[in-house]
Amino acid sequence: MPVNLIAPDPANLHPVAGLEIGTARAGIRKPGRRDLMIMRLAAGTTAAGVYTLNRFCAAPVTVCRDNLRATGGAPRAVVINTGCANAGTGALGLKSAKAVCAALAGALGCEPAEVLPMSTGVILEHLPVERVNAGIPAAVADLSPSNWAAAAEAIMTTDTVPKAASRRVDVDGRRVTVTGIAKGAGMIRPNMATMLGLIATDAAVAADTLAQWVREAADLSFNRITVDGDTSTNDTLLLIATGASGVQADEQPRAAALIRGAIVQIAQELAQAIVRDGEGATKFITVTVQKAGSEAEAAAAAYAIAHSPLVKTAFFASDPNLGRILAAIGYSGIEDLDVGLIDLYLDDVHVVTEGGRHPGYREEDGQRVMKKAEILVRVELNRGDAATTVWTCDLSHDYVSINADYRS
Amino acid sequence: MPVNLIAPDPANLHPVAGLEIGTARAGIRKPGRRDLMIMRLAAGTTAAGVYTLNRFCAAPVTVCRDNLRATGGAPRAVVINTGCANAGTGALGLKSAKAVCAALAGALGCEPAEVLPMSTGVILEHLPVERVNAGIPAAVADLSPSNWAAAAEAIMTTDTVPKAASRRVDVDGRRVTVTGIAKGAGMIRPNMATMLGLIATDAAVAADTLAQWVREAADLSFNRITVDGDTSTNDTLLLIATGASGVQADEQPRAAALIRGAIVQIAQELAQAIVRDGEGATKFITVTVQKAGSEAEAAAAAYAIAHSPLVKTAFFASDPNLGRILAAIGYSGIEDLDVGLIDLYLDDVHVVTEGGRHPGYREEDGQRVMKKAEILVRVELNRGDAATTVWTCDLSHDYVSINADYRS
Repeated sequence: MPVNLIAPDPANLHPVAGLEIGTARAGIRKPGRRDLMIMRLAAGTTAAGVYTLNRFCAAPVTVCRDNLRATGGAPRAVVINTGCANAGTGALGLKSAKAVCAALAGALGCEPAEVLPMSTGVILEHLPVERVNAGIPAAVADLSPSNWAAAAEAIMTTDTVPKAASRRVDVDGRRVTVTGIAKGAGMIRPNMATMLGLIATDAAVAADTLAQWVREAADLSFNRITVDGDTSTNDTLLLIATGASGVQADEQPRAAALIRGAIVQIAQELAQAIVRDGEGATKFITVTVQKAGSEAEAAAAAYAIAHSPLVKTAFFASDPNLGRILAAIGYSGIEDLDVGLIDLYLDDVHVVTEGGRHPGYREEDGQRVMKKAEILVRVELNRGDAATTVWTCDLSHDYVSINADYRS
Repeated sequence: MPVNLIAPDPANLHPVAGLEIGTARAGIRKPGRRDLMIMRLAAGTTAAGVYTLNRFCAAPVTVCRDNLRATGGAPRAVVINTGCANAGTGALGLKSAKAVCAALAGALGCEPAEVLPMSTGVILEHLPVERVNAGIPAAVADLSPSNWAAAAEAIMTTDTVPKAASRRVDVDGRRVTVTGIAKGAGMIRPNMATMLGLIATDAAVAADTLAQWVREAADLSFNRITVDGDTSTNDTLLLIATGASGVQADEQPRAAALIRGAIVQIAQELAQAIVRDGEGATKFITVTVQKAGSEAEAAAAAYAIAHSPLVKTAFFASDPNLGRILAAIGYSGIEDLDVGLIDLYLDDVHVVTEGGRHPGYREEDGQRVMKKAEILVRVELNRGDAATTVWTCDLSHDYVSINADYRS
């Protein structure tokens, strides 16, 4: 059951001028479910992406990257399918991804290289291109600026709740919209981007600027979450700017800051939604490591805590078996770590000081915090000024059930 | 339920001349269970250890290392308790570990620095020194060369089966015995040694030679297993040579090779026993990565597979969702990996070739292998001559149950 997360109200997902969305039931893996989403982008739209660092990256990741480069960051369409990741599929996988781009380009009257593909689902199975392409006409017929909620639904796999977020900012009296969707619940330890995410704005932003923003937004959001430490083969985050609002972000620092800020907020909301809907999650855990020697070592300690199956099962059990957190910090790879300096807090409860149990710590105080659905783990390494935050969830029986049953 | 592992027959655990073992029920955590083990070592005994690389190493690890160094590798006793790890306990923890050494030294008539302590159990709780020391007289009264089975039992925590192994080798007509015990079922991803292991021989071996052998034996055994990727705070492997057989290993290359070989075999048998009894394990998985550019990258790929919760839950479900193995190889950190060269075999079934599904692969063949209790995953990276093997188990509901309930 997701942790404090409900499906977004479609009324709160503001259309982004300059783009339309259509979905269809193509029967890619399961009959009758919405599993195909297309997006038509106005001329002049710019885009940038960040992608998985997994060397086994999926065919659509390669094609998406290549197409964005070939068009100088000026795409005219996006196509996303669920049900099949088209990963581990070799040369045929690339051919399949390109065939889908060509079919959509034909239907929309643009070039195949102007189409950006994304896929999610089972790895090591071939994309049923005929079924995907047979669904395209229905998706085209469905095109509308108001279909963000349906889009969020069409890209789900083991997600239990569709994930979308939207925000409007006022830039010198003119309104700019930022709306985004994401999916992901397992195989989540993004490295550069999450499983699938797409954020669009109707501001006008140069492709170069977008390329910088998408990296920064990913680093502050999708690159700071983990469910199970498994980096997906398909992680892609696209940032799209249609320009239809008429608001120019480039060369207007104040406008740029407002729009970039809204993009980061949407990215963080979507990234946290993925953790809240993490496979089997019953708790939403924020791990903050402070007073570290560098951001890298803060992240190493935070991820060691966030990945530890022993820490995650203790959260599931609401058991303040907090020595497991110390053990994780201890093996996080900080070579010259002086454990005698470490402080550990669970929300407001001071658990560890100078590397040992705090004299005032009482088990019932730890227990009280552990029972909450949202918990802050705060570590002070006391060796510098750097800090970072990572979001994760607990490890429950349902994680095992979901992943033991995923294909059945 | 452990995978093809039963308790050792005490009749097969050969005494090691020159040492005696005693156990007691000290009530350290739970009443009535055997939780304290001591070992008296003959004069002239040598020893060497390898220890956890966890920076949060437990107090007994520090004291054990210091005492071995202080005596030039010539200890006279060992003391091990279960129920409390004495880790994350700061200065008081060190004082407690030393107090136990002093009490045993008093009872046996040796120096406190000649006693090597080990502890296992819950982290972040203080060692009940009075209870431990009150148990020492009963353990001393119990001293006998034949107590190896009781010793294996006295060091268990979440282990379901005591772990011990024994072997005799003939060196030019004279018999040398090697017997060892180990414990560990969770928080198992040893780095230099496992949770607790102790291997003894009645050969005479110089402390320097032992120091080299214990590192080599650990690298070929305990450093090649993982249950949950959590490196413990207490990992210690001790190698002890009493010399009582009269067989000198030093300066006799043939004798040394035979004895070292028996030690490595015992270490591997014990390490594999830990995986077979891994928390919640239902499958024993051997992961072999071959044709790698270096042993380090072979290990990186093997551990990525062995640690992946998605791979481990697929094994639990007997589901040949083998794309998860490719994904793990892809994020294992081999920078210039060409995934188009990879072959993957499940036992004798060729699943992946050139990075994609093998044309002859049939799902039912994968299914057949996945249903077995012991499975070989073999990966060929096809980029060099290096290889390594790692042993692990699956991730089941019981892992979550055991670790959610551990302290209750």
